[in-house]
Amino acid sequence: MKIDLLQQLRNDNPMVLNIANSVTQSDVANGLAALGASPLMTNYDTELKTLTQMTGGVCVNIGTLDDRQNSISNNLMELATEFNKPLVLDPVGIGAVPERLEVVEDLLRIAKPTIIRGNAGEVASLVGAAWSSKGIDSLDKGQTQDVSEMAQACAKKFSCVVVVTGETDTIATADKIAKVYNGTPMFKTHVGTGDMLSSILSAFAAVSEGDFYEAAKVGCLVFSIAGEIVMNDYPEIGPSEFGIKLIDKLYQITVDDVEEWGKYDD
Amino acid sequence: MKIDLLQQLRNDNPMVLNIANSVTQSDVANGLAALGASPLMTNYDTELKTLTQMTGGVCVNIGTLDDRQNSISNNLMELATEFNKPLVLDPVGIGAVPERLEVVEDLLRIAKPTIIRGNAGEVASLVGAAWSSKGIDSLDKGQTQDVSEMAQACAKKFSCVVVVTGETDTIATADKIAKVYNGTPMFKTHVGTGDMLSSILSAFAAVSEGDFYEAAKVGCLVFSIAGEIVMNDYPEIGPSEFGIKLIDKLYQITVDDVEEWGKYDD
Amino acid sequence: MKIDLLQQLRNDNPMVLNIANSVTQSDVANGLAALGASPLMTNYDTELKTLTQMTGGVCVNIGTLDDRQNSISNNLMELATEFNKPLVLDPVGIGAVPERLEVVEDLLRIAKPTIIRGNAGEVASLVGAAWSSKGIDSLDKGQTQDVSEMAQACAKKFSCVVVVTGETDTIATADKIAKVYNGTPMFKTHVGTGDMLSSILSAFAAVSEGDFYEAAKVGCLVFSIAGEIVMNDYPEIGPSEFGIKLIDKLYQITVDDVEEWGKYDD
Repeated sequence: MKIDLLQQLRNDNPMVLNIANSVTQSDVANGLAALGASPLMTNYDTELKTLTQMTGGVCVNIGTLDDRQNSISNNLMELATEFNKPLVLDPVGIGAVPERLEVVEDLLRIAKPTIIRGNAGEVASLVGAAWSSKGIDSLDKGQTQDVSEMAQACAKKFSCVVVVTGETDTIATADKIAKVYNGTPMFKTHVGTGDMLSSILSAFAAVSEGDFYEAAKVGCLVFSIAGEIVMNDYPEIGPSEFGIKLIDKLYQITVDDVEEWGKYDD
Repeated sequence: MKIDLLQQLRNDNPMVLNIANSVTQSDVANGLAALGASPLMTNYDTELKTLTQMTGGVCVNIGTLDDRQNSISNNLMELATEFNKPLVLDPVGIGAVPERLEVVEDLLRIAKPTIIRGNAGEVASLVGAAWSSKGIDSLDKGQTQDVSEMAQACAKKFSCVVVVTGETDTIATADKIAKVYNGTPMFKTHVGTGDMLSSILSAFAAVSEGDFYEAAKVGCLVFSIAGEIVMNDYPEIGPSEFGIKLIDKLYQITVDDVEEWGKYDD
Repeated sequence: MKIDLLQQLRNDNPMVLNIANSVTQSDVANGLAALGASPLMTNYDTELKTLTQMTGGVCVNIGTLDDRQNSISNNLMELATEFNKPLVLDPVGIGAVPERLEVVEDLLRIAKPTIIRGNAGEVASLVGAAWSSKGIDSLDKGQTQDVSEMAQACAKKFSCVVVVTGETDTIATADKIAKVYNGTPMFKTHVGTGDMLSSILSAFAAVSEGDFYEAAKVGCLVFSIAGEIVMNDYPEIGPSEFGIKLIDKLYQITVDDVEEWGKYDD
């Protein structure tokens, strides 16, 4: 795995342009900045073209969608394609909410993302597989579908990299598959860690020279290990202090840390 | 008091659907998740019906209202009534801002909330009582109105449970009254603790099998005690670290803690 | 320097009415409240006049602008002028994004702010000077323009106080100039510290009895020292814990601290 992409990201300080989930945008912006990227959130159609041209990567998150934002997301997906910028799509809540799935299917008709990141329930809904969701959460216990197969089917359908996060992270293209085993259950309790990862994947994609599969793998690995180290160092903390220390670990984590802690099949 | 509702909440993991105050929604979402509920914020009219059907409770907070959100709040109050979901209304700022009081009076013509939670100035304005407010804060020193009487008048007028928070929390129906004496002054300095409590009351209401008075009392008690324990354990911390530790205490607090620390008239 | 304004602020508890950057508004509200002011964020045209009449100061931040908010910002700038309230303008991102510069130039045609606070790239763009920016960040290394000259040119052009923040803070009127040397590089890594300072300057302006130059200087000094003390006391922390401790230091900082730590030319 090209773990040096972490150092590359810090050297390049790529800008990541976000249509953000309003609930978690502070964490997302601070996570990106701590890791070494330069975050920018927009809701302003007039500036989209200028910002797309100057950014390194784009992330469209539908966590707090509305009609106006959906229109801006459409435009940003077109612009990212036009200016050849890596585009991450985070389809928050489509596993449980059909009205959100419709919005995402519209977005996917407009442009192909570089990376789709979701939980198992969200990715299942994109390929018509059976999976239980509850609101924005995926209910992963006792499911019978194979996550790797779903991820690869999704990657094939939309010609992109697909990342399914959960206890294990699955990173797939149509013909490749990787697993990241690092992490901590605390990622599920602190709100917005999935949103943070999606934007971070865009930052890694921006410095990957087109190797988006590698970018997605390294992004998942760095993020998962950051959280695992925090809970290893502070096993007694709760989800809110975890959120603070996770961002600070993104600021401090080194290539050596990732090499030492990494557990993955590649 | 049915303190076991805390354990019930953790077992059931109820979804709480929020029209949120945009300033504090990250704290609200994390507070709900830490306590054991499943938060969802929406601004999207198209998904309201689906989300209302799947949620356990609803919370409408007008802290950062605008015309579009007021319309969505209207719709959500109707839907909560139609699908028989516990509905908490947080009338932020109506004590000082007549234009907000008008919006809330419109909302209250559409549907009856299950619980109204506000500070004394906000609740006073709903019953036409005299009380001083400053922006979103209630000026409680030296007031002559009796809070219990105001709370009961409000509960009678809108046929719901009314919670008046302050140094002491007052929980009232038309013919019952309870007081929670736990808490810490730090609740006033950290922004958004009232918003958190309102959404948390919706989570307790969702698991109360219709006993909303009991839900409101236990919600106030758990939240107040969580803050009091934090300041007891860390008397030197400031308001921001208080906000972090408050959420983490919601994650850790047990029925035994509540029984040990509780100071209330019931 | 009138460092006692810090105590005056705590005594008066001025309200600050904000058109906020949605990404950072929680930090801004908590920073204001910790320092001793009373924050209020609005997006609701209907309540603007009422709120402007009751507030001590106003802060318009264009960090997450859109057409609707631009219109509200216009109205608020007019109202602040009509009711003679100190008005801080934070022109986020105009150094790099021409579409933002246009919005701010429109705002400046409507009303004169009391204080403009930006980074060097933002202030340069207001006076047509050459300066490099990257997204919302100013690239200050190796620039040849003189910041003091730019700040004074801007102050002269818009007949207001201009604050240019960076490693050194520059506070200028058309014929006066001051420098604050306190601070820490961590201000750049934690997202939203500039937004916090802008709103804090409005709080100081509200209690300054019209001496806005003094208010701006003291505001910069108090904020810079708060950050510097945090990193002096906790040199190993990351940007997220810095954000927490910065707010808590605003809660605790005294006039004596400011006198002991202050490094400035006045």
